Amino acid sequence: MDAAQEARNREAFRQAVVNTLERRLFYIPSFKIYRGVAGLYDYGPPGCAVKANVLAFWRQHFVLEENMLEVDCPCVTPEAVLKASGHVDKFTDLMVKDVKTGTCYRADHLLKDYCKDKLEKDPNLGAEKTAELKHVLAVLDDLSPEELGAKIKAYGITAPDTKNSLSDPYPFNLMFQTSIGPSGVNPGYMRPETAQGIFVNFKDLYYYNGNKLPFAAAQIGQAFRNEISPRQGLLRVREFTLAEIEHFVDPEDKSHPKFSEVSQLEFLMFPRNDQVSGRQARTIRIGEAVSQGIVNNETLGYFIGRVYLFLTQLGIDKDRLRFRQHLANEMAHYAADCWDAEIESSYGWIECVGIADRSAYDLLAHTDKSGVSLVAQEKFPEPREVEKLLIAPVKKELGLAFKGNQKKVVEALEAMGETEAMEMKATLEAKGETEFQVCTLDKVVSIKNNMVSISKEKKKEHQRVFTPSVIEPSFGIGRIIYCLYEHSFYTRANKDGDDQLNVFRFPPLVAPIKCTVFPLVQNQQYEEVAKRIAKSLTAFGISYKIDITGTSIGKRYARTDELGVPFAVTVDSTSSVTIRERDSKQQIRVNVDVVASLVKEVTDGVSTWADVLWRYPTHSS
Amino acid sequence: MDAAQEARNREAFRQAVVNTLERRLFYIPSFKIYRGVAGLYDYGPPGCAVKANVLAFWRQHFVLEENMLEVDCPCVTPEAVLKASGHVDKFTDLMVKDVKTGTCYRADHLLKDYCKDKLEKDPNLGAEKTAELKHVLAVLDDLSPEELGAKIKAYGITAPDTKNSLSDPYPFNLMFQTSIGPSGVNPGYMRPETAQGIFVNFKDLYYYNGNKLPFAAAQIGQAFRNEISPRQGLLRVREFTLAEIEHFVDPEDKSHPKFSEVSQLEFLMFPRNDQVSGRQARTIRIGEAVSQGIVNNETLGYFIGRVYLFLTQLGIDKDRLRFRQHLANEMAHYAADCWDAEIESSYGWIECVGIADRSAYDLLAHTDKSGVSLVAQEKFPEPREVEKLLIAPVKKELGLAFKGNQKKVVEALEAMGETEAMEMKATLEAKGETEFQVCTLDKVVSIKNNMVSISKEKKKEHQRVFTPSVIEPSFGIGRIIYCLYEHSFYTRANKDGDDQLNVFRFPPLVAPIKCTVFPLVQNQQYEEVAKRIAKSLTAFGISYKIDITGTSIGKRYARTDELGVPFAVTVDSTSSVTIRERDSKQQIRVNVDVVASLVKEVTDGVSTWADVLWRYPTHSS
Repeated sequence: MDAAQEARNREAFRQAVVNTLERRLFYIPSFKIYRGVAGLYDYGPPGCAVKANVLAFWRQHFVLEENMLEVDCPCVTPEAVLKASGHVDKFTDLMVKDVKTGTCYRADHLLKDYCKDKLEKDPNLGAEKTAELKHVLAVLDDLSPEELGAKIKAYGITAPDTKNSLSDPYPFNLMFQTSIGPSGVNPGYMRPETAQGIFVNFKDLYYYNGNKLPFAAAQIGQAFRNEISPRQGLLRVREFTLAEIEHFVDPEDKSHPKFSEVSQLEFLMFPRNDQVSGRQARTIRIGEAVSQGIVNNETLGYFIGRVYLFLTQLGIDKDRLRFRQHLANEMAHYAADCWDAEIESSYGWIECVGIADRSAYDLLAHTDKSGVSLVAQEKFPEPREVEKLLIAPVKKELGLAFKGNQKKVVEALEAMGETEAMEMKATLEAKGETEFQVCTLDKVVSIKNNMVSISKEKKKEHQRVFTPSVIEPSFGIGRIIYCLYEHSFYTRANKDGDDQLNVFRFPPLVAPIKCTVFPLVQNQQYEEVAKRIAKSLTAFGISYKIDITGTSIGKRYARTDELGVPFAVTVDSTSSVTIRERDSKQQIRVNVDVVASLVKEVTDGVSTWADVLWRYPTHSS
Repeated sequence: MDAAQEARNREAFRQAVVNTLERRLFYIPSFKIYRGVAGLYDYGPPGCAVKANVLAFWRQHFVLEENMLEVDCPCVTPEAVLKASGHVDKFTDLMVKDVKTGTCYRADHLLKDYCKDKLEKDPNLGAEKTAELKHVLAVLDDLSPEELGAKIKAYGITAPDTKNSLSDPYPFNLMFQTSIGPSGVNPGYMRPETAQGIFVNFKDLYYYNGNKLPFAAAQIGQAFRNEISPRQGLLRVREFTLAEIEHFVDPEDKSHPKFSEVSQLEFLMFPRNDQVSGRQARTIRIGEAVSQGIVNNETLGYFIGRVYLFLTQLGIDKDRLRFRQHLANEMAHYAADCWDAEIESSYGWIECVGIADRSAYDLLAHTDKSGVSLVAQEKFPEPREVEKLLIAPVKKELGLAFKGNQKKVVEALEAMGETEAMEMKATLEAKGETEFQVCTLDKVVSIKNNMVSISKEKKKEHQRVFTPSVIEPSFGIGRIIYCLYEHSFYTRANKDGDDQLNVFRFPPLVAPIKCTVFPLVQNQQYEEVAKRIAKSLTAFGISYKIDITGTSIGKRYARTDELGVPFAVTVDSTSSVTIRERDSKQQIRVNVDVVASLVKEVTDGVSTWADVLWRYPTHSS
């Protein structure tokens, strides 16, 4: 099958899934009667139930299992917080405008579409041009506004809707901005992630945890990104649910006490080196990935393993799930390592969970901007003699040399780490002068011997004070759910073989409704039995749907298969009823009084369908 | 006890509760390290768990029990939707500004404070003045901006912080405004309630329900109000969680099939007439309230009963819970009836749940503005002969009389209900002319005999098409939780009697942590037993806290009593352990292997503590 045919098949499959999802109200384009808003979707009843199930399992699998501290912070966030985190200045996409209509586009998307289109459809493309376009695609995320603009000009790319020419690319901040309070002078934003709410509470949470590391805090909540032109349906939206974990750990000890519980798991991994050298993702045991240094540390490896278990238990196909390591150019400069759980869907491989070791970056940024020290202490059993680095800038000399920039140079000197400082000391002693990069000035200055004194002193210390590292698994719940829909969907012929029926093979854990109840025919006796069963299902906390319409039983089965309901109870007598399993279509006959407890047993995962098949007589319809 | 002393006691009690809540991180002022934002709070770990428990119970008690259709819509809402709902034009509070500093205040709050203060503290207030101030307090909500401004001037009220004079009151819209998409031309708002998301989906939800009424849709989510100057701590905040139900019902049949299940409940009710005539709230059986017409209809009564059960099962004291009917001036003009569940706290009686029969207002408003007809159909078994009202405005005559206003007069005439139209017909026939109120013009016009023809015609109809009424129970989750904290809090003397210890008497359903595990002394054997118990608690899905510090057992009990943990397991041997109940402090001795299932049994409500006390030997420490 050629690539074009494959693309058409993927597109057809996606249409079948999406049509079913929309028709059965798994989701609804928001504000539809007002012609909707791009990138905003409602979860209808079954979608809402799936989401609630996924979040409940997330709480059980992560928060409860690891005794995490869950918090719940507001979406409205004052500017200071997002200034510190860097979002106010850097959370941008590059945008171009149709010069005549003002319609906005993402600059990188237009360039990407152009390159892909050319590569796929232009048969006369020479080897050189092909290589060039492939290179553009590879470095797309790294291009500056000027470089992007130059490419767009060079390739003659125009507005897709009108063919008008385009403005130069410029950064557009993706946060929804608002104003807090009536005065209009306090800007605020709808949070673009939930993580900052945890970081700013680090001090209280550390205290709550008995001033001990490691510990993890977690948050589930809405996040907002004012996308320039949302596409890819449910995968790129303007408001979405995130579930984030911030695991705080001593940077000198990133071991994890429960690592042995996951170390034997093996799954598809795609390390950085394999990507760079053009190899494919391969199955690696996570224990080996850590011991070989492919994954930076045990805690990161532990979470990768736990994420694998989480996703596959939800029903994600393990063969269409891989953990891809960020390339050097994708990763923030401060990050120690970063892996994305990517799930293959009809849109390609989709990043659904990011698992990053962000080192001390976030806590340092908030310490810096708030003036509140976000640190941990390790008390020594007895005082230790330590060598302390002492950096003493000579302000008078620096003032003479750098005038108004003196303060920034002083701060940069004081911020040097041990290695850098000792190198500078050596250079200054050898040459009397050295070059020094001052990031806050964005330039290199010359530091002379008389401008700073660097030394090491011995001191007795009773404790070590340090900024913890943070390891952050961050889950895009909506994306996971969408991929789950695709992985769960299949069609099968109806009884007569003249039609294809849709089925979602959700595990009971995820299924929006656990059980349907059908009186076989419309009569009062059967309806009363059905209501009795419904009542006991409610008492057991099991969601059900009762269908007393006169529709044929086959049609009623087809309807609930399409909702992914795993079990259907058909009332065909007043003493015993049948229970049908969705995928095998096998049926067993059980007494009316045990229906609810049996359904609970199999939906809670205490027993499997195979287990109960042995215990009850089978029924053939 | 005089009123002032009572006020001081309430204040002291509140301080004790709030101090405990803040110290134990039930909540945290948001963005504290950046000096916070008024009206924004985080839920810390125990608060977050309480909230999750309350919401899970809400889902069980309402959504699952009534088979409601739960949906989940975005917070970001385009202007058209909130224009239709009236929020863009009318969701305002009156604000005054300090003319020098620009600080904003709610005008009604300042006037209220002034009146209360005078009434409480001015001994020389004459009878006339007293009556006047009491009258102002009574009509406070009905005052126009001009009337409010006049009172503020007349009483010489100044800015509380500076004593500067104040601007005239003007309306301030309480919605957080933002802009959707990059163009800047699509205004949006953060939703002030979740209800609109349900209304705009009525058509799809009605279809999902098999085109049958009644049915209810539900939504849990964040809502936002940009309060002018938030006060009352957790009770008036700028972002909060709402849980809302919209129960759609045939306006001609508001009976409820399950009403008999609640009709015998009796609780404090405060009907409109009792309020007006200065009586107190009294205990009424809800069945009687409905049959006597105090409550408008069965469905409204059913929800009042269900709300009573919900709140009291959470732990709200039934003697400090009342259902207060809205006075005529509090109620929207379209509402058929409205009751608030009010809970008494140290701040007074607080509205925590509103239960309103909003008639067809919301669906009509969205039908009107979106052009999509949000109606239900009742198919008749056989066609019925019906009399149809026919209103035919004579546009030519109306045009001559009203010029540019003709269209609005025509619309108003066509919108007349049957009674009004038939009255107009009679008056026109008798007098040849009548006065007619055109709301959209905000004036009364004169309609002459030749301007409209009104008649009734007989027609065969196959179905009745109508706009459903909606009955809306709307829960302020944060307010309920805060009141629950106050109702659950008490102090008791410690063992030595020299100190007061804090306890939250949360029912297991609500308790943030169900169980603590303490090794009596620090040794490896006990710690291993504790970990084994912890592991089985996790497997049962029970949240626990393990405390292996060497702190005295009494102190560890006190710590978890203050978190409201209902059960404490103390490991004092390797075979059996003790379980202590928080409020009675009674202890039983049970085998290690049954701890988790026993704790599950009592926290799930399958057994009570009294039940298990009989089954196991008691233990005296």
